Amino acid sequence: MSVYQPPIQSMRFLVHEVLRAPAILAEAGWDEVSGDLFDDVLSQAGRIAAEVLFPLNRSGDEEGVRVEADGVRMPAGFGDAYRAWREGGWNGLAGDPAYGGQGMPALLDTLVTEMVCGANLAFSIVPGLTQGAIRAIAAHAGDALKDAYLPRMISGDWTGAMALTEPHAGTDLGLLRTRAEPAADGSHRLTGQKMFISSADHDLTDNLVHLVLARLPDAPPGTRGISLFLVPKRLPDGSRNGWAVLSSEQKMGLHASPTCVVSYEGAVGWMVGQPHRGLPAMFTMMNHERLFVGIQGIGVGECAAQSALAYAREREQGRAPDGPRTPGRPADAIIHLPDVRRMVLTARALTDAGRALAAWTALWMDRARHGGDPALAEEAEDWAALLTPVIKAAGTDFGFEAAVLAQQVMGGHGYIRDNGVEQLVRDVRATQIYEGTNGVQALDLVQRKLTLHGGRPVARLFAAIDAAARDLEAEPLTRDIAGPLRDAAERLRGVVAWLAEAGARSPLAPAAAAADTLKLMALVSYGWMWGLMATAAARRPEGYDRAYLDGRIGLARVFANRLLPETVALDLRIRSGHDSLFDPGLTDDLAALDG
Amino acid sequence: MSVYQPPIQSMRFLVHEVLRAPAILAEAGWDEVSGDLFDDVLSQAGRIAAEVLFPLNRSGDEEGVRVEADGVRMPAGFGDAYRAWREGGWNGLAGDPAYGGQGMPALLDTLVTEMVCGANLAFSIVPGLTQGAIRAIAAHAGDALKDAYLPRMISGDWTGAMALTEPHAGTDLGLLRTRAEPAADGSHRLTGQKMFISSADHDLTDNLVHLVLARLPDAPPGTRGISLFLVPKRLPDGSRNGWAVLSSEQKMGLHASPTCVVSYEGAVGWMVGQPHRGLPAMFTMMNHERLFVGIQGIGVGECAAQSALAYAREREQGRAPDGPRTPGRPADAIIHLPDVRRMVLTARALTDAGRALAAWTALWMDRARHGGDPALAEEAEDWAALLTPVIKAAGTDFGFEAAVLAQQVMGGHGYIRDNGVEQLVRDVRATQIYEGTNGVQALDLVQRKLTLHGGRPVARLFAAIDAAARDLEAEPLTRDIAGPLRDAAERLRGVVAWLAEAGARSPLAPAAAAADTLKLMALVSYGWMWGLMATAAARRPEGYDRAYLDGRIGLARVFANRLLPETVALDLRIRSGHDSLFDPGLTDDLAALDG
Repeated sequence: MSVYQPPIQSMRFLVHEVLRAPAILAEAGWDEVSGDLFDDVLSQAGRIAAEVLFPLNRSGDEEGVRVEADGVRMPAGFGDAYRAWREGGWNGLAGDPAYGGQGMPALLDTLVTEMVCGANLAFSIVPGLTQGAIRAIAAHAGDALKDAYLPRMISGDWTGAMALTEPHAGTDLGLLRTRAEPAADGSHRLTGQKMFISSADHDLTDNLVHLVLARLPDAPPGTRGISLFLVPKRLPDGSRNGWAVLSSEQKMGLHASPTCVVSYEGAVGWMVGQPHRGLPAMFTMMNHERLFVGIQGIGVGECAAQSALAYAREREQGRAPDGPRTPGRPADAIIHLPDVRRMVLTARALTDAGRALAAWTALWMDRARHGGDPALAEEAEDWAALLTPVIKAAGTDFGFEAAVLAQQVMGGHGYIRDNGVEQLVRDVRATQIYEGTNGVQALDLVQRKLTLHGGRPVARLFAAIDAAARDLEAEPLTRDIAGPLRDAAERLRGVVAWLAEAGARSPLAPAAAAADTLKLMALVSYGWMWGLMATAAARRPEGYDRAYLDGRIGLARVFANRLLPETVALDLRIRSGHDSLFDPGLTDDLAALDG
Repeated sequence: MSVYQPPIQSMRFLVHEVLRAPAILAEAGWDEVSGDLFDDVLSQAGRIAAEVLFPLNRSGDEEGVRVEADGVRMPAGFGDAYRAWREGGWNGLAGDPAYGGQGMPALLDTLVTEMVCGANLAFSIVPGLTQGAIRAIAAHAGDALKDAYLPRMISGDWTGAMALTEPHAGTDLGLLRTRAEPAADGSHRLTGQKMFISSADHDLTDNLVHLVLARLPDAPPGTRGISLFLVPKRLPDGSRNGWAVLSSEQKMGLHASPTCVVSYEGAVGWMVGQPHRGLPAMFTMMNHERLFVGIQGIGVGECAAQSALAYAREREQGRAPDGPRTPGRPADAIIHLPDVRRMVLTARALTDAGRALAAWTALWMDRARHGGDPALAEEAEDWAALLTPVIKAAGTDFGFEAAVLAQQVMGGHGYIRDNGVEQLVRDVRATQIYEGTNGVQALDLVQRKLTLHGGRPVARLFAAIDAAARDLEAEPLTRDIAGPLRDAAERLRGVVAWLAEAGARSPLAPAAAAADTLKLMALVSYGWMWGLMATAAARRPEGYDRAYLDGRIGLARVFANRLLPETVALDLRIRSGHDSLFDPGLTDDLAALDG
């Protein structure tokens, strides 16, 4: 069976010992955020996740959503769960106090969000998209729109969604055709059809808001002719706006999350930001969502890792190869079988490092929030820019890997629906695709982020890894972990230089290397996080199980010995270049490949 | 959309140019198997696969099977399709002519089976299990049972299934408890409950046969106390035997294949083979099924690779990084994007090599069938023993990878059910689990097959790779492919030696290295197959598209440059040993891992 326990000890260890967040936040001008507050909020959020959201995960998958004449119906229990979420004040946790939010750090919000995602991925989409819409409105809308919408969205009375994709325009938004005609009152009328809109409609709240990309009549073609509009479900007078959900997709997973085709038929919208500058405004939302989706992957990874371990400790089959561990029982628990340990430890090692990297990034964003220190702000922007594609793609790829491993640990029992782990595989698979496929993230990394500001962000990464490796070397318990981390970082450094040279010769080279480069950077970054965790554990802080701390160092060693070797292969594959993909024998469009 | 075209050109190329099968079969005493016969049978089977079975794949998934009071109902259309299969004589293609079969080579049967699997994985399970049951009965049952059952099973009038798993006994069959009491007439009465029985019941035929593992009253405990019984649905007098399907599992995929819990309540069975020697007899079936399941993975990989390419050539989004390929269109087809090419080519390269390796093995089994040459028979046994776990695990792991890649190429369109590719992911996932999980296959490889006969089978592999590399080097078009293949084979050779040494120190070492060793051996074997294919293509045989032949060499280069580098990482990971998995900090049962 799938299980979900809030990973409170791991989160506390990360906040207090690895990141030393309370002290850093205090330095950065956060007066009111004590360590106790972190612990209290995490405990309360963990209870909601485990007791309210997790029990609805299977039933939501089985029942699914349905489209009725007047809109989308969520599965049983989701309405009550959302009410508990909203009434508990969770929706405004990190929201701007000027609009009724609690102004808590992004770090805390990240960890709370991860628990929601781990307990019920489909549910998480509703508040997750609302948070991104809030950010885009706050950053780009005029005061009237902000005053009208932000308080209700921060409270959770209204939710948010984003409407980008059209049937012929997915990754390539420059092709989109939805039109926005100016009206006399300064609003616009939107006409067109959008698809793949998550949470476009539901019955959790009375109203909700779409952020819609559309073209003004005088728009130039391509991405520089797209504007952004706020299109609510209900107009200020309470009447229904002119759009309708035509259908919700039947999907591999996320059955409890509507994925809608929406027809806008002269729907009233208000422009957010400047004409033709909608895409940069939308990216305020998308950058938030990319971090959120990475956290979705990490949350599912947590549920998968827990489920795999629980099953492996209980299921008795066969004997350890070096002799029985429980001679009085007819068989040993399979956790004693090396190949099962490999799978359980891999799922755990990937998940915890992903959480740490997302938390690192969130803390940097917090450090810049209150401070007038421009150096801090610059560094925070560098980390967020560099790590967003890594957290999105690696968080979801490794979340998928963890779910597949958990299913494999359970054998046939992992394949049947009742046990819940196959749902994790189906659900998390979407996260590798939506919010920019992981291939798009990889291109963002190699084409933009690695070369940003002359390579300043990635230089910060190498400096941070050097410091982490020195700390590992200074402590006998962790000394052996430093070498593999340094070697892997050197490989990445070499690849970054190679990409610059090869890219100067052909733009095909970085694009062909993108996915491998992102994975290389992810493994290096995860190895770095394990370095930080091992160093923190070796200090033997109070307040944690001793076995838990020993386990941190053991997992860091697993990561160094078993996960980092892949960096050698990635390095080789990247340097093999793009020639084989464009081999003349393969023809330009690969037409003769099949036969 | 998922597409399935019979890969006739690729199969013909393999049979005639890569394996030169007709000549080799003639040498081995097969008089009646001409090259034309191969081509005719493949074409006819391809039509059934594409025209009869593939159209039922989506509808079968949507409708699923259901259990009614009198048994299992298959989805609409499956009855007609099975009738076409049976009446076309397909079920007896490779069957023993003494019992009404056509006695065709296993090579031909392998290719026909792959097309069935690629077109409709759920359907393939019915004949696939029947073939294995036929083999076990033919090898181990007495003449009366053989005469009564083989003709009807070879004709397809009756089907077969195997009943091994019990709730507490999956991989560890030694724990099973189903009992068999001798009756006065020489038959037995079976009592117990089995689960995860594929095709335990259906409405395609009037009768079917379970091969059931059970314990005699005097059975010693463990695997040496298990006997094998033939338990039909209908007794010879036409009456219903004493077992019933209690339920069929709700699964992630394979919805059109029943996976049953069966209760045996004094069911009549006849022993197959010797008392307490049921497990070796069952392995006659299981070894066949492991090859079959590997072919299932290859078949799904074929459908996935075709679907990915078809979509990528049609879908227009974005522009090639080095400039527009179709300036007159609003966007280029995504096949011109390097990361999409990477995914499409990887799916294709993995699939075709898998097919070649399965065909190689089948041809060796054929070479031994008619001959009195004991050297050929010995070599055939070596190849089958060594390659069965590789074909099973790599065929299914890479089939899953191909399906996931195809889904990723299609983005959101790959996640919705209508397009059919997400079903491939859900369906093929089972093949990595059933018939011995891929972890079990890996243990079979490292604990038994690599050391079999003093390592004679793996020595044959290295000799064959040497010969293939020499051929590659002798031809300017393929010379560059030889080096990576030799290097990868050397890595495997080093690992085999390392495993022997490390295993002598601790039995944990090979078990910890098992999955990585299997993948290493799979990549080396697949690289070898690409070597054979490239060499055959460089000869420029008549009767193939020139672009197809060029593509073979191009794909071999893709495999050498982009897939073989992983062998470096596997080598390193294997040699890191088992210590990190059993790090003292992790504790014996990993109890403190989560938190």
